[in-house]
Amino acid sequence: MMLINGQPAESVSALDRGLSYGDGLFETIRFVGSTAPLWHRHMKRLRSGCERLRIPCPDAQQLLDEAQQVKKKFEDAVVRITMTRGVGERGYAPPSVVVATRIVGAFAMPALSVQTYRDGIRMHRCHTTLADQPLLAGIKHLNRLEQVLARAEWSDPALAEGLVCDQHGHAISATAANLFAVVDGVPVTPAVDRCGVAGVARAAVLDVLGNCEVRDLPLSECLGASELFLSSSVRGILPVQAVGNTVYAPGPVTRAMQRHWRDLGFPTEQA
Amino acid sequence: MMLINGQPAESVSALDRGLSYGDGLFETIRFVGSTAPLWHRHMKRLRSGCERLRIPCPDAQQLLDEAQQVKKKFEDAVVRITMTRGVGERGYAPPSVVVATRIVGAFAMPALSVQTYRDGIRMHRCHTTLADQPLLAGIKHLNRLEQVLARAEWSDPALAEGLVCDQHGHAISATAANLFAVVDGVPVTPAVDRCGVAGVARAAVLDVLGNCEVRDLPLSECLGASELFLSSSVRGILPVQAVGNTVYAPGPVTRAMQRHWRDLGFPTEQA
Repeated sequence: MMLINGQPAESVSALDRGLSYGDGLFETIRFVGSTAPLWHRHMKRLRSGCERLRIPCPDAQQLLDEAQQVKKKFEDAVVRITMTRGVGERGYAPPSVVVATRIVGAFAMPALSVQTYRDGIRMHRCHTTLADQPLLAGIKHLNRLEQVLARAEWSDPALAEGLVCDQHGHAISATAANLFAVVDGVPVTPAVDRCGVAGVARAAVLDVLGNCEVRDLPLSECLGASELFLSSSVRGILPVQAVGNTVYAPGPVTRAMQRHWRDLGFPTEQA
Repeated sequence: MMLINGQPAESVSALDRGLSYGDGLFETIRFVGSTAPLWHRHMKRLRSGCERLRIPCPDAQQLLDEAQQVKKKFEDAVVRITMTRGVGERGYAPPSVVVATRIVGAFAMPALSVQTYRDGIRMHRCHTTLADQPLLAGIKHLNRLEQVLARAEWSDPALAEGLVCDQHGHAISATAANLFAVVDGVPVTPAVDRCGVAGVARAAVLDVLGNCEVRDLPLSECLGASELFLSSSVRGILPVQAVGNTVYAPGPVTRAMQRHWRDLGFPTEQA
């Protein structure tokens, strides 16, 4: 089920700027029963993204009501909230009066196996690199062709994610999750001020890992890490078992973050 | 009027990947009566873009039939053709079987004044810069937040366009048109292999200007040019009168291109 501007609907105007120009942003929010443990973080990022793109930000309580409504038929669900700059005339100039489009839809939670959380995932090393664009970096906006191209590089279901770098040889993230490495005993996550998305799960991990460095992470350093894991608001904390031919074992930082994730209120798929 | 996958319609599925990820591309095509003088160039670029993004390319004759149908109520029109990777499940992975979405809609031609073509336009110098992304450069894809941000920098109607640079200080284009400069008597247009759009009007100008250099154009060189003009498949050849405080007079290359444009079959709005 889906609500568009509060009304049950399945389609949007073909003149919506979200479609014409990718002029908007989104959140994908995991619900556990009727609770979304990271709800406030999602709202904070949405507000910040709306401010940066100058799109009117919806009321958080209204969004929560709508999210609860669309997820009714699911036990657990992923709710996607999309905000666009609304319908506009042809041309890039924003309308003088913006009536944003608000889309709230629910999807089934993807299946997550005990093995995944115990042993970790295998990753493809993507050739697609992310462009530096500080004006858009961090925002979960609708311009996602880079991620589409990166994800299209492999179809082997044994590879759960792809490692994506920027154009300077720094590891940035997975195609749809953030990246953490443990280097010389210290956790590191790539800065996302030139490219990449400032993940909500990443923010939660950063808050609990007091000593995590946020900086450029050269690919060689990433591949030489003692632990590697991904953070995703939908999939949680995913140990990385391999990137291409480089193998890892889930280590103590990864395990501690998995426990923290469970404490936040997410189910413990891990063994 | 609009046709979506050949049927009269005004809306698309809220699950269309064009909306979810900007996963698609478009053409805006000027019709003069029932003729689109640059039709074959538009089809060539659309085909090339579809190949690069691996989106199934529609049949050109079918598109022409649909364009003629939607533009009926207009004397002259701008027809926008949008192709997306169609409806997909949540997630960046392309569907295993892609059923592309095809949107063909007509818009009124924007008003163009004699003065504009005679005296030229004034341009804002944009602070927004374009990111280098060779995998997407040249394609008229749906990820247009950079252009939206650049166009949102000014609202003064006396400024008809904005000059946009890349992150290395090279002039690239206007927000919605390509750029030509005459430097030391030689026409130059910026390369669009790292960012920017390979305009259809740009291609037509390049074909007739046998000696035009396609290369990096440092902003200082652009500002010091003896002539500056824009090419747009909708607006044609626009002399540039000023970029910020730097002024220009329409020169012989600009005038020759305006004549060529008329010879291609576009009306002569210029005096």
